[in-house]
This record gives sequence, C-alpha cells and structure tokens, in this order.
Amino acid sequence: MGKTKGGFTLPGESGYEKLTLEMAEKWGADVIRDSDGTELSPEIINAGYGIYSTICIIRDHNEWAKQNTDKLQQSFLMTNPVVAESDSVKIDLMKDFFNEQFKINESDESKAYWQVFDRTTNEEVKDWTYENGVVTVNGVTPWHKYTVNFLAYRIWEEISMYNHTTNNWDKEHLMQIDPRYPETQQYMLDWMKNWCETHPATTVVRFTSMFYNFVWIWGSNERNRDLFSDWASYDFTVSPLALKEFEKKYGYALTSEDFINKGELHATHMTCDKKKLDWMEFINDFVVDFGKKLVDLVHTYGKKAYVFYDDSWVGVEPWGKRFKDFGFDGLIKCVFNGFEARLCAGVDVVETHEIRLHPYLFPVGLGGAPTFMEGGNPTLEAKGYWKNVRRALLRAPIDRIGLGGYLSLTLPFPDFNDYIEKIADEFREIKEFHKAGKPYVLKPRVAVLTFWGSLRSWTCAGHYHEHPELDLINIIEALSGMPFDVEFISFDDLKNKGLDNYDVVINAGFAGSAWSGGEQWKDEKVVSLLTEWVNNGGAFIGVNEPSATDGYDTFFRMSHVLGVSEDTGARICHGKYSFDVENNGAVVDGTVLAGKNKVYLVDGETKVLAADGDMPTVTTHKFGKGTGVYMSSFKHGEVNNRTLLNLILTAAGESTDQKYLTDNVNTECCYYPEGKQLVVINNADTEQTATVKTDAGDKTVTLSAFDTQIVQL
Amino acid sequence: MGKTKGGFTLPGESGYEKLTLEMAEKWGADVIRDSDGTELSPEIINAGYGIYSTICIIRDHNEWAKQNTDKLQQSFLMTNPVVAESDSVKIDLMKDFFNEQFKINESDESKAYWQVFDRTTNEEVKDWTYENGVVTVNGVTPWHKYTVNFLAYRIWEEISMYNHTTNNWDKEHLMQIDPRYPETQQYMLDWMKNWCETHPATTVVRFTSMFYNFVWIWGSNERNRDLFSDWASYDFTVSPLALKEFEKKYGYALTSEDFINKGELHATHMTCDKKKLDWMEFINDFVVDFGKKLVDLVHTYGKKAYVFYDDSWVGVEPWGKRFKDFGFDGLIKCVFNGFEARLCAGVDVVETHEIRLHPYLFPVGLGGAPTFMEGGNPTLEAKGYWKNVRRALLRAPIDRIGLGGYLSLTLPFPDFNDYIEKIADEFREIKEFHKAGKPYVLKPRVAVLTFWGSLRSWTCAGHYHEHPELDLINIIEALSGMPFDVEFISFDDLKNKGLDNYDVVINAGFAGSAWSGGEQWKDEKVVSLLTEWVNNGGAFIGVNEPSATDGYDTFFRMSHVLGVSEDTGARICHGKYSFDVENNGAVVDGTVLAGKNKVYLVDGETKVLAADGDMPTVTTHKFGKGTGVYMSSFKHGEVNNRTLLNLILTAAGESTDQKYLTDNVNTECCYYPEGKQLVVINNADTEQTATVKTDAGDKTVTLSAFDTQIVQL
Repeated sequence: MGKTKGGFTLPGESGYEKLTLEMAEKWGADVIRDSDGTELSPEIINAGYGIYSTICIIRDHNEWAKQNTDKLQQSFLMTNPVVAESDSVKIDLMKDFFNEQFKINESDESKAYWQVFDRTTNEEVKDWTYENGVVTVNGVTPWHKYTVNFLAYRIWEEISMYNHTTNNWDKEHLMQIDPRYPETQQYMLDWMKNWCETHPATTVVRFTSMFYNFVWIWGSNERNRDLFSDWASYDFTVSPLALKEFEKKYGYALTSEDFINKGELHATHMTCDKKKLDWMEFINDFVVDFGKKLVDLVHTYGKKAYVFYDDSWVGVEPWGKRFKDFGFDGLIKCVFNGFEARLCAGVDVVETHEIRLHPYLFPVGLGGAPTFMEGGNPTLEAKGYWKNVRRALLRAPIDRIGLGGYLSLTLPFPDFNDYIEKIADEFREIKEFHKAGKPYVLKPRVAVLTFWGSLRSWTCAGHYHEHPELDLINIIEALSGMPFDVEFISFDDLKNKGLDNYDVVINAGFAGSAWSGGEQWKDEKVVSLLTEWVNNGGAFIGVNEPSATDGYDTFFRMSHVLGVSEDTGARICHGKYSFDVENNGAVVDGTVLAGKNKVYLVDGETKVLAADGDMPTVTTHKFGKGTGVYMSSFKHGEVNNRTLLNLILTAAGESTDQKYLTDNVNTECCYYPEGKQLVVINNADTEQTATVKTDAGDKTVTLSAFDTQIVQL
Repeated sequence: MGKTKGGFTLPGESGYEKLTLEMAEKWGADVIRDSDGTELSPEIINAGYGIYSTICIIRDHNEWAKQNTDKLQQSFLMTNPVVAESDSVKIDLMKDFFNEQFKINESDESKAYWQVFDRTTNEEVKDWTYENGVVTVNGVTPWHKYTVNFLAYRIWEEISMYNHTTNNWDKEHLMQIDPRYPETQQYMLDWMKNWCETHPATTVVRFTSMFYNFVWIWGSNERNRDLFSDWASYDFTVSPLALKEFEKKYGYALTSEDFINKGELHATHMTCDKKKLDWMEFINDFVVDFGKKLVDLVHTYGKKAYVFYDDSWVGVEPWGKRFKDFGFDGLIKCVFNGFEARLCAGVDVVETHEIRLHPYLFPVGLGGAPTFMEGGNPTLEAKGYWKNVRRALLRAPIDRIGLGGYLSLTLPFPDFNDYIEKIADEFREIKEFHKAGKPYVLKPRVAVLTFWGSLRSWTCAGHYHEHPELDLINIIEALSGMPFDVEFISFDDLKNKGLDNYDVVINAGFAGSAWSGGEQWKDEKVVSLLTEWVNNGGAFIGVNEPSATDGYDTFFRMSHVLGVSEDTGARICHGKYSFDVENNGAVVDGTVLAGKNKVYLVDGETKVLAADGDMPTVTTHKFGKGTGVYMSSFKHGEVNNRTLLNLILTAAGESTDQKYLTDNVNTECCYYPEGKQLVVINNADTEQTATVKTDAGDKTVTLSAFDTQIVQL
C-alpha cells in the first residue's frame, strides 16, 4: 500500500523534538498529543500539527481539594461481617479497606445513611453508636453476624493510585473532587476557562474522561488488594447531596443497602432492579448537563472537545440516549480487541472516532510484563493487537488511530516504528474504502439479546482480559469482524419492537447474569414472542445458560426451541437421552467448546453436532420453520469463530458456501462493493492461502503471517 | 484362620444336590435358600439345613391381578410439554412412556386428580377434555407450553420388567397388586396362609420385600428408556383410594402436582416439603400395619420372617421409628460397599442381620459384564467387594453372610469357591471378636448432618454405582471402616437435641440437595447453634456446597466458621485472597480432590492445605476454640480416606499419630480390647507392611495383596 497521511495522533515528547517530528512524518501523523505527566515543547507545538491536550477535570486540583475535603467523591462500603459473642458487638469500619483510598465520612448527613444489618437474619438493626472509627451494635443475638454499611470519602483518585502504587512513585496523592456540589462546579468552570486561555495552541481538548471513575475498591490486605472492580458500576457517584436530590426528583429515597446489596454490590455483569436503573439515569442526566457546560466553554475558545471512553467515564454513556447532548466532537477509545473498535465506531452522534492502539509506549504492559524495555517485544505485541482490531476496522469505520506514552522508548525498537508505519498506511486505506460505502454483509441480521440492550453494545463491561471467561465477550469479539449486521437489544426492545428486523437472536451468559438475562425470562411475553418468532423461521442461538431462570419446569425457558435444558441438581434421578455426534458440517474441525453444565436433551429430535465427553457442546433443533442452536460455551479464535459464523448461517437457513467468505479459517475477507475492493487478511502467524468466491470469479491469494492484501475486482 | 461353621446362607440348586451339599460343607453353611425361579429338591430340603424361602408378595399373582385390574399399583406421570400453536392443544398422554409398563387409569376417580398446567406461566388450566388417550386443552395461549399430570396403572412389575428385558425372556409379564384395597389384603393373607401350609420345611420366609417398589419410570424412546429412578421415592405408592384416606387422616388433600413437582418429581437426593413427609409417614404406617399381619401369620406357623432391604422396600424404612412394629426377625441387605453393611448392621431392632455378598452367581453382573461365564473373573470381583465390605464388618457386627444365584455356575471357577471359603472363615472369626465387645474407637464422635437425618443413615438413597459423583456417598463409604462412632442427624435433631454428643459435624453435598440441606440453612437457629458449638470447640467439616442457600451475604451460611464461601456468579467483580498452599500434614501425598466450585477465602486467616490450580480444595479455619474445615469434593479411596481421617482428627484437636492406626495408608486395622485382638487388613492389590502402635508396643505385619492378619496382643 502507498504512503498516505492523516488520521494519526502521535504522542510528542519534549527533549525528543527531532524524533517526534521524524515519527510524525513516518507515521503520517496530523496531530501531536501530550501524555499523562508530559508537556509539549514550543518546537513541537509550532511545527504545524494539530495539538491534543489531555485534561482530567476531577483530579490535579489538590490545592482546592484540601480546602474542600467535604466535596471529595464518596462511596458506600460494607464491613466484613463480625460474629457476635455476646449481646453487643464492635465493628471497626476501616479494618478491611485500604486507608490510603478511603476515609470515613463521619458527618451527620453521612451517618443518616449508614445501616447495620444482622446478616444471619437479613434484618436491619437500629440500636448502634459510632465513635472513633468503630460502630458498637447493641442488643444483638449472640452468634449472629453483623455488618455496617457506611459512607467514605475517596481520598486518592483510583487511576493515579494504581499508577502510583504500580510504579512506586513518591509524590502527593491526587484527590478527586465531586462536581455534584455547586462550589465544585464553579471551581471547575473557572479552571476550565483559565486552562483554555492559557493553552492557545491546543486544537483539541481531550477529557479523561468526565467526573466519575469506574468502581475500584481496594482492601487493607495485600493478599486481597482488589476487593471490587467494575468498569461500568455507578457506585462511585454517591453522596448525601446526590441522594437527597435523587429523592426529590424520583419521589423515593435510596438506602445504603440499595447500593451494598448484601455486600455483592451491583456488578454490571448481573441484572438489577428499577432503583439502580433510576440512579443510573439520574447520574447520567447530571453528567450530561454539567459536562455540556464544560464542552460549551471549550467550544467558545474555538477548540474541539473529545472524550476518552474509559477511566472516569461513568455517567457519560456514549451508547445512551443523552450522549448527543454533550456536544462532543470526538470519542476516543483505547483498544486491545475488535469489539472495542466497534464500541467506539458505533457511536454515531460524534464526528470523530479515534482509537488508541496498544501497546502503549510504556516500559511495562499489562500485568507488569516488559514491553519497551529489555525482554520486551513490542512489535509482536502490536501485531497481536492489530490482528484483533483490524478485522473490526474492516467492518466499521474509524476516523483516527493513535498511540500514547513516551516516544523515546521506541528508539531501541526500530522494527516497531516500521510496523506502526505499515499499520497506519493500512488503516488509512481501509478508511478510504469505507468512505465509498458500506462493506458487503451476509443475509442474516443478528441481534444480541441482553438485559442492557444497546446501552452495553459491543462490551461486557470492561476489557477482554478482565473477564475472558465470559461467553458473550468472546462472541462479540468474534462478531466484531464478521460480515453481519449486528445490533444489541434489550428485553424491552424485544417486547416493544418485536424481532422483525432480525434473523438470528443470540443469548449468551451464565444464569442470572445481565448477559443471559436472569429474571427477565420470567416474563411470559418474552418467551412467547421469541417462540412465535422462531416458529415463523427465526433462529435462536443460546450459549452457556441461555434463557435460564428458576421456578419453571425447565431451567432454560427456551428449552422447547433449543431442544436442551440444564439440570441444576434436582434432576439427579432423571435419565438422559443418549446421543451420537452428527456434525452437519457447521462445526469446523478443531473447534473446542468446553462442556460446562449438566445439559441434557429435552427432545430426541435434537441433533448433537459436537460433544465434550457425554456433554453436548453444540446442538441444533428444528422448531416450526425456525431453529434453536445451543453452544455450551464460546471462546473466540480462528477456528471457533468460523464455527460460530457457520452456525449463524445454517441456523438462518443459509449455506456456508457463500460469496465473499474465504475458504481458509485462518483468513477472513471484507468486500467493498462500491469500490469493488476485496480485502483479505491473515489472522495466523504463518503463511496462508485463501480462495474467495466473488462476482468476478474465484480469487486466490497467498498472505504472509498476519498480512493484509487488497484485491481489486 | 481355622475352619469354622455357621452364619452362612447358601443358594441351593436342584439337579446339583451333590455340589450344593459339598459347598455347604466347604463354606460352613447352616442355611440353604432358593433363588428367584428355583425350587429346592427334597434331597436338599431334608439334608438337615435351615431352609430360606423367598417370596415376593405383590407379584406372582397374575391370575388374580387379571381379574382385578383396578387394584394394580399406580403412579402419577407428567407428559412432556407441548407448545400450543393456536387456542387449543392436543396432548397424547402415553407418547413418552413405555406402554408395557403403564396404562392410563381412565376412571372418573382417577381423572379427578389429573391436572393440566400452562408451564410457561405455572398456572393450572381447567378447561380440558379426555378421549382415547389424548387430552385436549381449550382456551390456551398460543406459544405457551402445556403438560398433563395423569394417573396410570403399572402393568409390569419393575424388577421382573428389568430382568425380562435384560435377559430377553419370553414369558408372561408379572403384574403387581396394591394391598391398599381390602380385597387385595384378604387375597394376600389367604395366599400367605396357604403358602405357609404348603411349605412345611421352610424355617425362614424372606420377604422381597414388602409392597411398593422404588420408583423406576421407563420411557417410550430406546435412547431414553430410564426416565426416572430413585431407590427411596414414594411415588409408586399412590392411588385414588390412598389419596382419599390420606385426606381423611391429615385433613388436607394432595394434588397430582404435589407429586409431579413441575416434572422434577421429588428425588430423595433433594429436600422436600411437609406434604411429602406427611405422605411418607402415611405410607409407612400402612406398610407396617398390614405388613405386621403377614409377619404375624408367618410366625403362627413357627417360621421366622426376614425382610430384604431392597426392591419393594418403600414404606418399610428399617431406620424409621416404626420398623420394630413389623416384628421381623431378620434384615437382609445385598452389599457392594461398606456403607451398605453399616446400613444393615445399624438397624438394632432385629435379631439377625444378614448381608448378601457380590458377585451374585449369575452369568453376567452389573452393566452386563461377564461374571460366571467366559471372560469373567468372579474371584477378582469377590476380592474387590470383600475389600469394600470387610473394613465395615470390622467396625459393626453382622450376623450372617450369604450368596444368591445359581450354584452350578461356580463349577468352572474352583478358585472362587476357595476364596469364598476363606471369606466365610474370616467373617466368622470377626463375628466372634464382636461378640466379646465393641471395637476400639478414636475420641472424635462424628455426626453427619443431612435433611433426612437418621432415616437415611449410611446411604444416599441407593447403590454407590448409581451416584458415584455424590460427595456424601463417598464420605460414608470412607467412614464405614473408620475407627469413629458415627451418627446421622437431621436439622431438627440439631435444634432439638443440640450437638453435645459430637465432636465433629460433617455436612456434604451440592446446594439444594438433601445432603447439604437446602433451605434448612435459612433457619437462623441452625446457623447460630452450630456457630456457638464450633466456638466452644466443635469441628465443622463442610464438603462441596455445605450450608449453601440463596438470599444471604454469603452462599455458604457457615462461611464465618469455614473461612470460605462460594461465588455463584454475582461476585464476578470481587477480588479474591491469593494464598499459598501450606499442608499441615493432614493431607496425605497423592490425595486428589477436584476443585468444583468458585470457592474463595472470606478471611485471610483461612489456611489452604491443598488446591487444584487456583481453587482451594482443602482449607482449615480457626473459629473460637473450634475449627472449620472445607473440602471441595470427596472420592473414597485409600489415600483420600486417610486424608479424611486425618482431617477429622486434627479438626477435633487430636493428633494423627495415634494408637491403633496403621502407618501405611493402604492398610487399616481394628482393635478389639476385650479379646486383645488386632485385625490388620490390606486394601491394596500388592504386598504391604504396616506398623501399629499398641498398648503392647509397636506391631509390624506384612500382608499379601488384600490379605487379613490377626495379631493377638
């Protein structure tokens, strides 16, 4: 591919001006950015490039924070249970928590929200007193266990806490201030105004991100530092003031237990009640309303405002209805995987979609493994990430790519710089193809049915490496590069809009999870509508514990369609259908799907396409004019991905022998009909040959490891 | 060991009189029995031996049964669900059931109990009609699914159905008649009287067993023949008459759904509601009351009455409060395993406890593998079973042993006959030791806590091979030969009697099972009492999902004692304590316990003694003066058994270096203080040397494979 320019954001580094400008030329950068802890020198700023500046609006204000410690951000915490040995029990609130992160909010308005529970009976206990960090509970039942829900200030911004701790920094802890308070809002607006005035060269202000971090609770014990982390939880948005404003707006009060939920908290991976949904809406409204004021301010200075889709992104909700109201010009997502590129690309209310590629230009990467230092192989890492992301970029347009970190670290790795040059050119070429028109897709229109629906499109709340065990995150990673139109729908969407726009519905997750749907499946309308739709020709693909909920004759509510259900224990004395494995060709040789649950055939007509010992792992079952497909689990990968693609096609009544599919599972292709360009990619680390049926006849290409080739038809 | 006589029941065979009497002499038999389908010849009957005769009182009456088809035994059945496609749906009742086993009871009094359910909503539907085997349900909701609960006669007695089908017999199907009807009772009493009068030589009538078989429901599809089988279920005891009598006695009516339970039925492995417990009591009362009339009749002819503890044993309940009321003289149990010997030995209200050894003298054994035919090795089989049973016989006295089947089949296997001679002599010697007094036990007194308590002592409802995956059946098999006093207690026992009589409480099973206890753990008294008892020095050993129930802050209700709990999914975002494995010596090298669940440490003080990857498999946790021990699973076997023994000792604060324990895990010993006999056994198939600390110093013995040695101290 030829040398092109633009759509590339380069991290500049003062003191390495020559390198910065050389690399900007090599990689075709049009924008130079600073990074956390770096400032760009005048030589770079004045070199004619656009200038990104990152700001984190809620931290880096320690001066003000120290004078306003009652306006720091807060969180509800629950102590570990303490077993009473007499009629009173003392509970040390901070015993289990990292005292550099949390500080008890001892104010009366805080204590009004504290709750003590007898966790042996689930009853609240009202007779307690607080003094010097300890709650004393009176009139308790010996040998019952008790917990305290209390409110604590967060005195160390979590991202800086993590970086600080990981890198053994020796500097002041940054605090995070809460814009819920009018004083904080005024301070932030003043600060933003001043910032804009003192940064005339900046063309784009990158917000990192808005106000509230994803939830990350640290413990006092080094063997259990990470007590809770959830990329999409709203538990760090709470304060007495916010709770009071919520009560006024919604007409009912929330309690600490509504957040604490017996200590489970409300992980985004699980379904939740209306109260939590109301709270999310309440916070989203606040973040949008106040966030818009900051964006407007930036715009008055002729600068653009982009938002980083990570860290303090809670309440921003790029896939929510109100995101457009911010007025952001761009959305930036750091990506390890294809689904993250789709997560960014799919937000259609911003002009610019930018992805930050990995590896970051840091000495060490994830989990402390070396990257840009001795022992590291950043080029190989970059190839692995690009392999993940490239197939998604073929399917959905992204406007910009970029890197982050310290450019000087690349000096000992010239092959890395060459590889980024190749990637950048490849990216720009693909971007041009998209400009001409939408890539070709196969007929089945796919809907992914979850509790969250479109709000959590192309994600299972967080990065792949945090929850690689989730079936759905593997499925969306597989789907991110497949030639299908994919939408994410909720159970309300199903009930209110029906399924006429889809040919295949996928429901994948463990029982009770937001991804499977939990108690949503108790709604007979959900079951009936889906049943009728399959009967009329639809395909329902269930993975792991699809449609699972307690209280009915079968654990899988869609068992009559799937042809299988799961024994949760009570069917221990029931016999099971024996079966022979009869692969209809959809399951590719080498496909490995773990048999997770005690799944049994509910119908002798169910066909088993694959099995793990005596556990069916892929089954198919005719229902009326439609089909139910069951998969026990799913891990993405070249072979499994192709099996999923085949199952989607066959379930929807389509052949697997289609135009614009490669005949080699290690390769994929994408066809752009307007420009008649066929892009073929090799996902393997060895040379591969692939043939693609096209309107212009069969095309055969040979690709070196991880390579991309473009065939003009 | 010397040649002894008595306590041995030999299956005689007509036509092989010489062999019969030779073997009687060789094996020291004092009693000769017939077997199913055999009659003893006068030569055998008159040889001076006691004579056992087997009778099955509810079958072998086809003449009468055919004239009284309305008095055959019955069962509720539920059809598979049918999805409605319009506003009515037709359901063919017998479609899924084996029509040689069941026949619809179409009478009005039967139909009064039938129920149709919308299983999509769990609502009963009243608008239905029945004709020619088909129920038509009207006014249904399209795309909901419907089932029919109906009552069927059982027209083929299940044990004979199994033997018939397995052996491809070509003879009349035997039916089973229901003694619930006064006419049947009169017929049976008359028949019994006549039988006694026509069998003057019989000294012992062996009932096989009483009236109601364990539940075994066969399906129409050969790929799913075994729809349901439960060795202790009461579902085969039902009839309109019984249901009416129940209603009169208990003041409320049962419905078909009370038995069907959404198609799950009520497996004995699961907990149940008060209704089922009432029904069990109702049937037990009936079986005892009418059974006693038959036993009394047998006694009037000067014969003894023994009962076989299997097959049609439902309602007999040898461990129940009313068993003594039958007046049986003996209890006979066929045994594969040690726990079955304890199941028999522990019933103290009969004079004679007899066990039927395996292998049976049949051509094929379990699962159709050859035994007494070409390819079989009955001696090796006998050694394996004897290895299982011997260690239990050392701990608890059994009065008699015996064989069943066709003696002539042993002719080609003289080594088998020699081995039985050795076993018989060994058995008689052990029996003599017991007569002198109780064997020595170690200090910890063990209670096994289950939903069923003592009613299901030494069993998990059935043979080991039916549910080898159950942790508790493995634990009781291990315990059956250990030097501990063991009792089985229920949750009511715990609440009403406390735990002062025990040092160790074991709770082992999957969540919701009768063995773990299910919703019994919601009772705060159970949790509090057990907590206080551990605090005061008790040891709680939990296996798999002990004390597990939903709705509290931890899935394991005893997590504060165990130091661990299980994540059922909602804790997906919670971190876990890291740990190092620190074996305190209790876990024997080679112990393998599968990590089954997502178990996590709730306390940094919990010690991990063994792990399967990152899953703790053995943990210990101090609580007050006591201890909580967790095991992720348990499989019996020499190595694992010793680990369990060590864990019981250490949890109870005892040393593992005790008198009267062997120092070699492949061996065990039992000490009889009165006679000062030490019996050392080798459970391995290779020579083993073991040393035992005794009051008379260390004793070292070398044993050949599977051998027994007696050391006089």
